[in-house]
Amino acid sequence: MNNNKISLTGIKPTGIPHIGNYFGAIKPALELVNDYNPFYFIADYHALNIIKNKQDMKKLCYNLAATWLACGLDPEKVVFYKQSMVPETFELEVILSAFTPKGLMNRAHAYKAKVDSNKNSGKDPDDGVNIGLFTYPVLMAADILLFDTDLVPVGKDQVQHIEMATDIAQSINYNYQKDLFKIPKPLIQKETQLVIGLDGRKMSKSYNNVIPLFLPENQLRKLIMRIVTNSQTVEEPKNPDESNIFSLYKLFATPEEIEDLKNQYLKGGMGWGYAKNILFEKINSHFKPMREKYNELISDKKYIDKILLEGSEKARYIASKKMRKLRRALGVTN
Amino acid sequence: MNNNKISLTGIKPTGIPHIGNYFGAIKPALELVNDYNPFYFIADYHALNIIKNKQDMKKLCYNLAATWLACGLDPEKVVFYKQSMVPETFELEVILSAFTPKGLMNRAHAYKAKVDSNKNSGKDPDDGVNIGLFTYPVLMAADILLFDTDLVPVGKDQVQHIEMATDIAQSINYNYQKDLFKIPKPLIQKETQLVIGLDGRKMSKSYNNVIPLFLPENQLRKLIMRIVTNSQTVEEPKNPDESNIFSLYKLFATPEEIEDLKNQYLKGGMGWGYAKNILFEKINSHFKPMREKYNELISDKKYIDKILLEGSEKARYIASKKMRKLRRALGVTN
Repeated sequence: MNNNKISLTGIKPTGIPHIGNYFGAIKPALELVNDYNPFYFIADYHALNIIKNKQDMKKLCYNLAATWLACGLDPEKVVFYKQSMVPETFELEVILSAFTPKGLMNRAHAYKAKVDSNKNSGKDPDDGVNIGLFTYPVLMAADILLFDTDLVPVGKDQVQHIEMATDIAQSINYNYQKDLFKIPKPLIQKETQLVIGLDGRKMSKSYNNVIPLFLPENQLRKLIMRIVTNSQTVEEPKNPDESNIFSLYKLFATPEEIEDLKNQYLKGGMGWGYAKNILFEKINSHFKPMREKYNELISDKKYIDKILLEGSEKARYIASKKMRKLRRALGVTN
Repeated sequence: MNNNKISLTGIKPTGIPHIGNYFGAIKPALELVNDYNPFYFIADYHALNIIKNKQDMKKLCYNLAATWLACGLDPEKVVFYKQSMVPETFELEVILSAFTPKGLMNRAHAYKAKVDSNKNSGKDPDDGVNIGLFTYPVLMAADILLFDTDLVPVGKDQVQHIEMATDIAQSINYNYQKDLFKIPKPLIQKETQLVIGLDGRKMSKSYNNVIPLFLPENQLRKLIMRIVTNSQTVEEPKNPDESNIFSLYKLFATPEEIEDLKNQYLKGGMGWGYAKNILFEKINSHFKPMREKYNELISDKKYIDKILLEGSEKARYIASKKMRKLRRALGVTN
């Protein structure tokens, strides 16, 4: 049931989507689709702070768009667009900047962490910080406020960004004595299931331990065979709660299947190779239809372009109305 | 003779134009018109950091546009536009921000002076600094780089801004191994004649000692009668070099007239009232035709809108080509 509230999510094209992203971001976001009017966008200009190579930028954007579509994003239900194709965002950022105290950005968690880490290693506090990173929360506020967003699904570490958008919006509303911006609320997502990587740590690009979503079968099998295990023999009973393989298996299996495999672990007689193979089969069959869809999409970039253009046009229709109203309120136009 | 070089000047609508602005900015800028392809724009989003009232913003923009047109700006020769009407500027700012080290902004003279003054008065270093002010040089770099500007006429205190634009442009050109941006050069203007205000200090809005350009005659006369003098009697010989009235007179009179009045000062028998009256006549007759033109323009806002729209369309034609090229180079579009 759609309650007509607008929810907005930006997705940064900074890496190849993996199983951790799927369970942590893509699946929960797609589950929200029916409850809201969802706006999902590829945040390419946010990514520009990191991705400074033309081919990488193009590839990562197409991969991300194809991934979301393959995972089930329905462009009829979601306004699915690319940030750079909605330039109203950037004018809004300039406007918001005039009402954003610099002190607010100084207090951003991510920036403060970077400064601390620089200081600890004896570097200049702002080493490696560019203006795009420093003012990231202002651009994010523009992304949000442009569409009168009601809700922004975020993890706990992102709540501060919504608070900043709120502060900026309120100070503009107050200054012009008008409800120019809707005040957004964070939709704090319940802790998503921890997805373990190949080495037992959290699956993350920065640990180089990820299982990409749409690897060809043979490569997927090879990768799963690389999951780190202990050196127990086939005969020994094994503790499923300490097994990376079992941890991943639980993401895909039914409760009955989980119970069944658990018993095999506990009674002994099951080797790691067997457990890995069962895991491979599960992952492979889960993603196979999506992978086929993905492969189809990624070889039809014109179609992706078309989808994003249509989504961007929908977004711009709303954005340009918002900006006209705002420009009039500021007095820069009649 | 036009050498086809592009010169660009932004004018901030933050106050009523006065005689100091006329001799310091407007006149020299209009004298450059025939030597370059000039782009002059009303920097309304720069002004937004200061002007946060709708009516003020509208009034200041119209006054500024009418002033420049009345002073002789020919929209056939100058691309005359409003910054907010060329939104490509703001997308470019976002792009430049990803290549601008925060340290570069930390070192901006104006920002450093503000921090020092805050520290000296025991305030938070960033007190009263908003993000728009802090990142002002990035937006200015966008203004400049968007049009492949060759030359930016600036005072000495603004040279750093051009150096910053150069740094940012070079780092993008280097990163993409392409001449995406032309490197701008400052055109350092020779010291303009110091224009003295009513109280003998430099004429400046912040000293509240200005003579607005287009005051009605009776108000202009009253204001000139308020110029501060010493208490010498009519009979006493007077030193023209110490007279605020004479200093202003020199801006308007021919060398012969200056010599003539100088002698009257030196020989005595001339009262301050007389000197003020001569000054009033000079200023009044100098600005009378412009004032009439100004009054005509300011009562025809539709005409000003039309001029700025046409100028903005010319600017956008160039800007949008530039942005297409740039977006392709970054990989955000095909």
